Amino acid sequence: MNKDQRHLNVTAIENGTVIDHIPANNVFKVLHILNLENNKNQVLFGDNLDSKKYGKKGIIKVSNTYFAANEINKIALVAPTATFIEIKDFEVVTKKQVQVPDHIQRIVKCFNPNCITNVECVPSKFNVVDKTEMKLLCHYCEKITSKNNIVFV
Amino acid sequence: MNKDQRHLNVTAIENGTVIDHIPANNVFKVLHILNLENNKNQVLFGDNLDSKKYGKKGIIKVSNTYFAANEINKIALVAPTATFIEIKDFEVVTKKQVQVPDHIQRIVKCFNPNCITNVECVPSKFNVVDKTEMKLLCHYCEKITSKNNIVFV
Repeated sequence: MNKDQRHLNVTAIENGTVIDHIPANNVFKVLHILNLENNKNQVLFGDNLDSKKYGKKGIIKVSNTYFAANEINKIALVAPTATFIEIKDFEVVTKKQVQVPDHIQRIVKCFNPNCITNVECVPSKFNVVDKTEMKLLCHYCEKITSKNNIVFV
Repeated sequence: MNKDQRHLNVTAIENGTVIDHIPANNVFKVLHILNLENNKNQVLFGDNLDSKKYGKKGIIKVSNTYFAANEINKIALVAPTATFIEIKDFEVVTKKQVQVPDHIQRIVKCFNPNCITNVECVPSKFNVVDKTEMKLLCHYCEKITSKNNIVFV
């Protein structure tokens, strides 16, 4: 085996973002939500890594890419424990603990197929009524969309 | 930053498979086809890594997992250059160059919505008529499903 195959050639990134403490099994959702499938920069990730804090975790590193607040908020829905660490010139410049927002607009579909947001061209709008169990109360139909039913628009 | 965040903690795997030389941007398709989203073992990957041979490439490492021939064949459709390297006790035991098969059954949907395989419960069946451009001739409707239209069942 060459060095790549043995070690995956992962060193510190010069510029970019490290997303740490992603719950195991949700790494792929995070990659998808952040559209990292189409990112042209170096993307590295590990899933089911040992974590002292959480047992198993995922971690993502992406070069030359930083995320806007609304993207970080989307992640909160599948990875509320995640930390976004921004690196510039090999140094940590900011470290953001993901926060579950009080209100969620546009990014999640309402679970109720008859909700006006699914029938007409009305953007979804929820109040987060339970941040641990991730229960989203639809502003329009008042049905609850919960963690297992979350589908991103 | 801790060690994980800096280096992704990637060392040689004791048992498992390394999939090297995946074309950049197709790593996510490979992950999906091999159902690695739901694998409970350690999964590591890098995308858009520098490769002497291909410019940019992807690599996947998965612990305690080996792939059957039909799974390797599915990969051939999106990653014909890939190599499957099986590791046991830190040693390479086999190294398989992916081969595009002559015939493909079941794993790909026919592009033609009116094809009997899409209308009735008939498994798809193709002859691979062009292995470079990946043109699949449907055994039933004789329409060509080509690289950009491949959807896996």
